[in-house]
Amino acid sequence: MKTTILSADHLRQIVRRVGLDRLMDETIGRLTEACAGLDARETVVPARAGFSYNRPDLGLLEWMPGMATGAGVQIKVVGYHPGNGRSHGLPTVLSTLSTYSVESGRLMGLMDATLVTAMRTGAASAVASRILADPESSSLGIIGCGAQAVTQLHALSRVFPLRRVYVHDTDPVAVASFQQRIHCLGLDAVAIVPAPVHTFLDQVDMLCTATSVGVGEGPVFEDGPLRPHVHVNAIGSDFPGKIELPEALLRRALVCPDFTEQALKEGECQRLEPRALGPDLPTLVKEQACHRRARDGLTVFDSTGWAVEDMVSMALFMEHAAALGIGAEVQVESVSSDYRHPYQFLYDAPAGEAGPSPDGRLKRVV
Amino acid sequence: MKTTILSADHLRQIVRRVGLDRLMDETIGRLTEACAGLDARETVVPARAGFSYNRPDLGLLEWMPGMATGAGVQIKVVGYHPGNGRSHGLPTVLSTLSTYSVESGRLMGLMDATLVTAMRTGAASAVASRILADPESSSLGIIGCGAQAVTQLHALSRVFPLRRVYVHDTDPVAVASFQQRIHCLGLDAVAIVPAPVHTFLDQVDMLCTATSVGVGEGPVFEDGPLRPHVHVNAIGSDFPGKIELPEALLRRALVCPDFTEQALKEGECQRLEPRALGPDLPTLVKEQACHRRARDGLTVFDSTGWAVEDMVSMALFMEHAAALGIGAEVQVESVSSDYRHPYQFLYDAPAGEAGPSPDGRLKRVV
Repeated sequence: MKTTILSADHLRQIVRRVGLDRLMDETIGRLTEACAGLDARETVVPARAGFSYNRPDLGLLEWMPGMATGAGVQIKVVGYHPGNGRSHGLPTVLSTLSTYSVESGRLMGLMDATLVTAMRTGAASAVASRILADPESSSLGIIGCGAQAVTQLHALSRVFPLRRVYVHDTDPVAVASFQQRIHCLGLDAVAIVPAPVHTFLDQVDMLCTATSVGVGEGPVFEDGPLRPHVHVNAIGSDFPGKIELPEALLRRALVCPDFTEQALKEGECQRLEPRALGPDLPTLVKEQACHRRARDGLTVFDSTGWAVEDMVSMALFMEHAAALGIGAEVQVESVSSDYRHPYQFLYDAPAGEAGPSPDGRLKRVV
Repeated sequence: MKTTILSADHLRQIVRRVGLDRLMDETIGRLTEACAGLDARETVVPARAGFSYNRPDLGLLEWMPGMATGAGVQIKVVGYHPGNGRSHGLPTVLSTLSTYSVESGRLMGLMDATLVTAMRTGAASAVASRILADPESSSLGIIGCGAQAVTQLHALSRVFPLRRVYVHDTDPVAVASFQQRIHCLGLDAVAIVPAPVHTFLDQVDMLCTATSVGVGEGPVFEDGPLRPHVHVNAIGSDFPGKIELPEALLRRALVCPDFTEQALKEGECQRLEPRALGPDLPTLVKEQACHRRARDGLTVFDSTGWAVEDMVSMALFMEHAAALGIGAEVQVESVSSDYRHPYQFLYDAPAGEAGPSPDGRLKRVV
């Protein structure tokens, strides 16, 4: 009855063994399958809830639950702290994922979701873009060059023949370091071109916004002439009042949210009427044959983050971990040999459990 | 930036070192202090939410978040699976507690909450009973002799001069094993008397209901004559439609909920109008001088479970763990040396981190 814990170090081992490209490809593939097979009666995803605060700093802590009925419950807890980089040298988004058994309620697994969130957000853009963007898209504009930009580029580079990527950020350090940060992706054929947004807006096949723009401070660029077939992945909008795209652009595009209910509250869609929205991500995948014609026009994927993406990613990493024998098994919950006796476990001495060593620490860690 | 994980084994070590009675006394003391000092503007406790289902079996998984503004966020995840004992030999309630930093959003700690939930539920009854029950109460009737009954008795035995405890359960095995299960409490002066409810209803100073009665199947005993000063701790009611007490009893009592908003939805209070309720637990503690006179009459503590109880308990165990050097420190979240580079940590080799051994497992577990 142990909990599998995948630490950052375990993820490092998994990625080193499986490969980053293969993991991204599998995430894209499995998310596509999950969308295609989604039965809304069986997969229950309540809109996320959370605490937002401005003490000690501006921050947001949210829980994103999801249930595959009869199979499992998962909760992702996500912290969004835009001052993390400056104040603590930490990513803006820090996150963990937990799964629970619907048979007994026990904690089945816990893992880092910081990597997974970045990867699955990239993968979701790839899934949407594969349907909505020109398959020959070779140029991409990225507005906001932080952590998410790396995985957006990674995911798109797996499904499009990218040659030229324009990058912009209000922070010149983010722009200057981008080339070095994507070095590990091995995109030798791709030219990274730092440039102001207005200079590349009419030069790109795809656009990606992934900023930490403040509430009420968007949009992050001014509307202007775009190529007629442009597809936009809008990643950053995930809070009431936080928006990245010019409203006029939004209104003339086919806007596809990942998760409609949430996008209307927190995404670019918060400025649109429900009836003005296009199909959501699973519908897009299921009906891709009829939505592919949208490629000729302006399209937007409004990505706010969807629990099913996390389910897919966690399952993928847990499967690799099990196959490779990576991870720690920890008896987290106290379970007594007599289930009616909450203190019994204090006196149980389970086989294989080491006793306290002289300094009071367990010989066997965890 | 590590997460402190307290496993069942760590809790065992802490209890062995600190002592079960002292931990219960400290939980009661700290919960009293927390109630006395509670500032509702600073402590934010949303009503819990969750998934309930009947596949594969009847079950409920809930998350109970709480925030001490500017200090920390905590989420308890609780599984309630009434078939756990029969099907898996596991407790009905399985639970874990996590805390998160409001500075960065990172996961600060994770621990078993099965023990803590049982202990703090006992402690909450002790806090309420110390104000609402006759301080000389020596007799107690327990209806429902499962896991919660053990900690209810433990907590009450710490603050009342108990001599006689009547016990009843629809399952004769639960009754027959109760004496043995409380052996560890060392209550040599207390006589445990199995008996039908109607035979002890007018014999006790305090009553405790802690059953797994089904929705729509309550109350768990028939109303009858009680001693005028009886105090009831109603523990089991925690779901819409699940109730334990006869409505007539409830209507002639002063009913004090732990957490009003939740008790009106899930507790005994679901049958009462908000204006018919007495003070909640923190108000009771703050204004105990004026509520003590309620001791002469019939009182009910409607205990549905309150996040502040969990905050107090988790803090207590984490403090003991830190003082004793018990617990595991795990780098759960993937944090790159460059916070803008989500993949950097894959290539970082932090000091003290062991590399993969030939069989692909880390030399240092977790």
